[in-house]
Amino acid sequence: MTNAIDFYFDFSSPYGYFAADAIEAEAARAGRPCRWVPILLGPAFKASGNQLLIEQPLKGAYSRHDWDRLARLTGIPYAFPDPFPVASVAAARVFWWLDASDGAGAKVFARAIFAGYFAHGRNIGDKAVVAAIADECGHDRAAALAAMDDPAWKAKCRDETEAAIGRGVFGSPFFIIDDEPFWGSDRLPMVRRWLETGGW
Amino acid sequence: MTNAIDFYFDFSSPYGYFAADAIEAEAARAGRPCRWVPILLGPAFKASGNQLLIEQPLKGAYSRHDWDRLARLTGIPYAFPDPFPVASVAAARVFWWLDASDGAGAKVFARAIFAGYFAHGRNIGDKAVVAAIADECGHDRAAALAAMDDPAWKAKCRDETEAAIGRGVFGSPFFIIDDEPFWGSDRLPMVRRWLETGGW
Repeated sequence: MTNAIDFYFDFSSPYGYFAADAIEAEAARAGRPCRWVPILLGPAFKASGNQLLIEQPLKGAYSRHDWDRLARLTGIPYAFPDPFPVASVAAARVFWWLDASDGAGAKVFARAIFAGYFAHGRNIGDKAVVAAIADECGHDRAAALAAMDDPAWKAKCRDETEAAIGRGVFGSPFFIIDDEPFWGSDRLPMVRRWLETGGW
Repeated sequence: MTNAIDFYFDFSSPYGYFAADAIEAEAARAGRPCRWVPILLGPAFKASGNQLLIEQPLKGAYSRHDWDRLARLTGIPYAFPDPFPVASVAAARVFWWLDASDGAGAKVFARAIFAGYFAHGRNIGDKAVVAAIADECGHDRAAALAAMDDPAWKAKCRDETEAAIGRGVFGSPFFIIDDEPFWGSDRLPMVRRWLETGGW
């Protein structure tokens, strides 16, 4: 089968950031497209009764330690951003606007958003910052700002989040391969095995 | 260094069950002892604001699917037990009673408890079942029943859980190696790497 691997993430999710290049590489290795689906974890957490890692006692401290450790292990540029977390809705809407006409360009923008936030400490919760990053990726700044308030991209963003929840997505990153769900960047080795074997 | 690897788990945790043989093997590979520490997830969840996986929407369904998938992948005998979860305090107290005089015997008992519950569907929340399993492991049934109500093992069980929470433990399984914390059976590959390299 050559169905796409669905990669669900929130732009403000460190584990989503750490997984992004890796899942793209796994998809390429398996000869499959990888569909990036930015979602809003807020509604997903509401549906699942989950809450932000960083706000949980013990688990929050563990997570911060773990992100530093993962960065050192993988060599992925990372510094815990401030503020954290931020609303990722503006970035998600711009992503969908770009994706409608240029899937590859949307991914370039998504990587720039991730790197802007997690490597360079830019506040991607700020619409002006999101527009600046779109501009740096070669898109029109005013059009990007307009896309953030466009009912079409608002609806697309909401619909994709609701569709994700409907498929059982409750965290970031979350991968779905031929309806098989995998939650967390820790599951990348299992994803590889699943792709190699066709499942078990 | 040859410090022990601390393996924290709850006897009613499927991920703890799936990880038990594997962490013992990693410790043996690294030439380190492995200290098994049964804890009670109830107090740990209270401290961390966490809740039972199985009771969480979306995540509960994912977990049941994932346990079946892990069992098929690893070949570890497993059937989702009924009732689930159960109170694991009686088993934990008997473990500490045995451990005080016979560490190896306590691990044999712990494996029998895990297998009794997750492979054979025996209700390890039932004191009579725990006593029967102790008996099958060569221990005195009446003494096992007495240990469950002995203030010394009640206190030991409570103290170990509190000490675990004090070290940041919030789930099962949880591994601590030279004060470095690793949460979840997914982290066994990282544990191996940490042991091989001495950390990063």
